[in-house]
Amino acid sequence: MQKVVLNITMSLDGFIAGPGISKEHPMGKDGPILHDWIFDGKTEIDSSLLKEVVESSGAVIVGSRTYVTAIEDAWGGNSPFEVPAFVICHHLPEVIAPGFTFITNGIGAALDQAREIAGDKNIWVMGGADIIQQFLNAKLVDSLDLHIAPVLLTNGTRLFDHIKPDKIGLEKISVIDTPAATHIRYDIIR
Amino acid sequence: MQKVVLNITMSLDGFIAGPGISKEHPMGKDGPILHDWIFDGKTEIDSSLLKEVVESSGAVIVGSRTYVTAIEDAWGGNSPFEVPAFVICHHLPEVIAPGFTFITNGIGAALDQAREIAGDKNIWVMGGADIIQQFLNAKLVDSLDLHIAPVLLTNGTRLFDHIKPDKIGLEKISVIDTPAATHIRYDIIR
Repeated sequence: MQKVVLNITMSLDGFIAGPGISKEHPMGKDGPILHDWIFDGKTEIDSSLLKEVVESSGAVIVGSRTYVTAIEDAWGGNSPFEVPAFVICHHLPEVIAPGFTFITNGIGAALDQAREIAGDKNIWVMGGADIIQQFLNAKLVDSLDLHIAPVLLTNGTRLFDHIKPDKIGLEKISVIDTPAATHIRYDIIR
Repeated sequence: MQKVVLNITMSLDGFIAGPGISKEHPMGKDGPILHDWIFDGKTEIDSSLLKEVVESSGAVIVGSRTYVTAIEDAWGGNSPFEVPAFVICHHLPEVIAPGFTFITNGIGAALDQAREIAGDKNIWVMGGADIIQQFLNAKLVDSLDLHIAPVLLTNGTRLFDHIKPDKIGLEKISVIDTPAATHIRYDIIR
């Protein structure tokens, strides 16, 4: 069954990037440590979890700030995704890379197109935080795949911020612990 | 070896209480759900973890707001702790309950007294958030025992807020998952 999944790494104190994000430092100061489970600190379990994320996704949704920050340097001008990716933006960015579709009329429109192209597979809402918050506030999210890195960043971009003040119940589906992350999957209770 | 331990439950989005804390509602709106692992949702594993916290602690430190909010109603006028507890306050509260020592000259003075009385056992820094943040900022914490409840509270009192903007490295010691909480223990890397 197709699901809308937030899949993202955060520090124990809830940051998904450090301060000072730029094209040269897309994760901000100290931010790259969050992705230790994907790179230097990865185990076979981490790699298989990442593979599962990729293989289960039929479309990706990202925000324009994430796209603009990453496309030239971090992503080298090409989509890092194996499936179609949708960029939610107010107007077209300067760099138009293949593999991306640019949506200027909101998250609902992006999700409609992503759902169609994803077929039975999931929609991976990658971020940044602003897009994730929009999806949570619109109650469009089915599952959270969180990777909690063992660090307190103490500042940067908070994942769970500006959410409508109304408790969101979660059902914990699985917890898999590796040295560089605690991987927890939740379904949102409706 | 004696350790200074933060031992507290937070929602996945980092809140240790909901909004609207009062003597009648010391955990704020929706806050009691955080402690489901201690009460309605507890398993034998949760209970043994709680027992271990209590048995390993030789002294408890709490903030004055926590004390004033809880002492009459939630705690029924008596200390809920089996060991001496130190209340960090600016001036003596109206209700002086047995089992508590009131410290008006800061966290360092409280910790000195707690260390002496705790012997080989740990100092449990219980909270609230303000006291925990003071201890983290003063680099006086050895370990974090966090219980992550499967809920997004979306507002309330954040645990990791107002921390000096300087990454704090953590070494993950153990992860124990139960239905109502994911219990993670970290040591702070110095």
